[in-house]
Amino acid sequence: MSRILVIGAGGVGVITALSLWLKKESDVSLVVRSDYDRVLKHGYTIESCDYGRLEGWRPHHIYSSVEDAASAADNQGYNYIVVTTKNIIDGPVNSRVSNIIRPVLEKNKELHGPQLTTHILLVQNGIDIEKEIWAEFPREQYRYTVLSGIQLIGSTKIGSGHISQVGQDHLSCGAFDPQDAAAIQAANDFVRMYSNEGQNFVEFDPRVRYSRWKKLLYNAAINTSTALVGLDVPRCLEFGVNKKSTEIEVFHPAMREIIAIAASEGIIIEEEFITMFTEITRKKVFKPSMCVDCEKGQLMELEVILGNPIRIAKRNGVATPTLSILYNLLVLVQAKLKERKGLLKFDEKTATLVDE
Amino acid sequence: MSRILVIGAGGVGVITALSLWLKKESDVSLVVRSDYDRVLKHGYTIESCDYGRLEGWRPHHIYSSVEDAASAADNQGYNYIVVTTKNIIDGPVNSRVSNIIRPVLEKNKELHGPQLTTHILLVQNGIDIEKEIWAEFPREQYRYTVLSGIQLIGSTKIGSGHISQVGQDHLSCGAFDPQDAAAIQAANDFVRMYSNEGQNFVEFDPRVRYSRWKKLLYNAAINTSTALVGLDVPRCLEFGVNKKSTEIEVFHPAMREIIAIAASEGIIIEEEFITMFTEITRKKVFKPSMCVDCEKGQLMELEVILGNPIRIAKRNGVATPTLSILYNLLVLVQAKLKERKGLLKFDEKTATLVDE
Repeated sequence: MSRILVIGAGGVGVITALSLWLKKESDVSLVVRSDYDRVLKHGYTIESCDYGRLEGWRPHHIYSSVEDAASAADNQGYNYIVVTTKNIIDGPVNSRVSNIIRPVLEKNKELHGPQLTTHILLVQNGIDIEKEIWAEFPREQYRYTVLSGIQLIGSTKIGSGHISQVGQDHLSCGAFDPQDAAAIQAANDFVRMYSNEGQNFVEFDPRVRYSRWKKLLYNAAINTSTALVGLDVPRCLEFGVNKKSTEIEVFHPAMREIIAIAASEGIIIEEEFITMFTEITRKKVFKPSMCVDCEKGQLMELEVILGNPIRIAKRNGVATPTLSILYNLLVLVQAKLKERKGLLKFDEKTATLVDE
Repeated sequence: MSRILVIGAGGVGVITALSLWLKKESDVSLVVRSDYDRVLKHGYTIESCDYGRLEGWRPHHIYSSVEDAASAADNQGYNYIVVTTKNIIDGPVNSRVSNIIRPVLEKNKELHGPQLTTHILLVQNGIDIEKEIWAEFPREQYRYTVLSGIQLIGSTKIGSGHISQVGQDHLSCGAFDPQDAAAIQAANDFVRMYSNEGQNFVEFDPRVRYSRWKKLLYNAAINTSTALVGLDVPRCLEFGVNKKSTEIEVFHPAMREIIAIAASEGIIIEEEFITMFTEITRKKVFKPSMCVDCEKGQLMELEVILGNPIRIAKRNGVATPTLSILYNLLVLVQAKLKERKGLLKFDEKTATLVDE
């Protein structure tokens, strides 16, 4: 039976752990940071459109840190690490994915050497998020695969130990490296262990990079814009000049630039998705993640959603007039959030950033 | 002796009234809305870098509304109306300049017919702000001139009846219509009545439209951007990628587009002002007006600063990729402010704007 460690106990992580637990084909551990005491004592309260209401639910094991999960692994290690935390590559060093998963990879290596392959599934937004792992863990020293998870799920932690899921869980899972047979096998196995027929919807994704660029149409154009103006998507659409300017002059041009960058990488995203992504959000009074993060004073996933695509565009000579302005304004908002969190300092007397 | 009515008793309006009063060449009335009772009883407390500290200061007359000022005019009328209020052409109808000044123009006409020319001085931001007055008051029916005032002054109302002025008052004043001899004369007269040598700095402006487009470099590019990100100018500059992206990728392209629009109107703004406007604000930890309005929940002067120039650009076939994105994002922020003030309604059930 596969041992799976889910890292991140927000709306996504808890439903991920629950879905695996219900299928009964794996041994499920969850890292619960802020709610640990509450969940240890009372378990989770979950209202799920997929699974109904659960009271006092717990996965097989819970830990208050990744270090604890690694060292408490009963000398068995983990077959899968599922990362559902936000991916803030410009945030504090210890919040980077490679540092988050390092204790488990090291422990697995110590326990099993090359006998155990660790499958690292990143259920996270953005482009090029796998490269940090490839760079930080040389293949000669660590035995692992990197899997991509793209999830659509309206699930939120609404209180301590309390999860509300209002949208059906759609997960597509595949291998970042399409040549990596072990990764493809691991992704297919995960799909099987995760799928609860008639409840959630899970599929193997044979074209991970295509799917990520496709989802980026939404994230790079719509998610980003809502963060700058602090409004849900229907308001953004209706508040435009003649109720049209937001889509015609902001969303659509931004999406067309993403399509052009993807094309420069050999990935063809069909134009029809421009309309599709605008239409599916038109009537949903819902603030996307970057808008919510910004309002909560939390760092946004700006670099994986917009910074990385723009850097690819620069490398490939693709013009991104719309995305660049959104990006350069959001870089300032991100810095404002960092200053509030004490992650950077600005000296008002000299009017300069203090380099540390 | 000229009778002058100053409308708007914020940091600008009060120092305007004081400057005229000190020169002793005019009879000065001030419309004081929110602070009326306080100022009637105790006068103003003013800390001014130009005039020192004043306690209990009042102009010759104060009124709580323009209507009162008009009807209390002792059958004499006013020679000048100086409008220092914000210019929100998309705001409530009664806050538009033409409606604000209407009682005085009507009263002047009733009292004196064509014998009295009313000089309307707009000390306000933006482009094409005079056209509303020309449209609303036909020249066959009303006798008036329209004058342009561009003011640089660090003056703020910091409490009820309490004004703090930290930057020397620089006012340039001219005729919107360069063919209008009466307007040119009136502007020169105003400069004389306003100038307190060695204290403020006042000059006749022979090229009003040039000056307004020039000031727009700052307002359309820098003021707007700070409103979107909620930061003062030095932070915007320092927080950019490599401390450079804000000026290179946002401020400068936006300013170049303003120069191009101005050129399409026959007005040549020198490129050197792009650097000048960036440099003069680099070390001043100061939030421009739109940023302050936005944070206070007040409507921004978006349409006169950015909407009007973009409409001119469309008419003249000038491309404005940078300004258009700034504008279309700020239109959403302005609508958010309007919704908060109850000036527009959004129905979350149908996810549509309620047309009234």
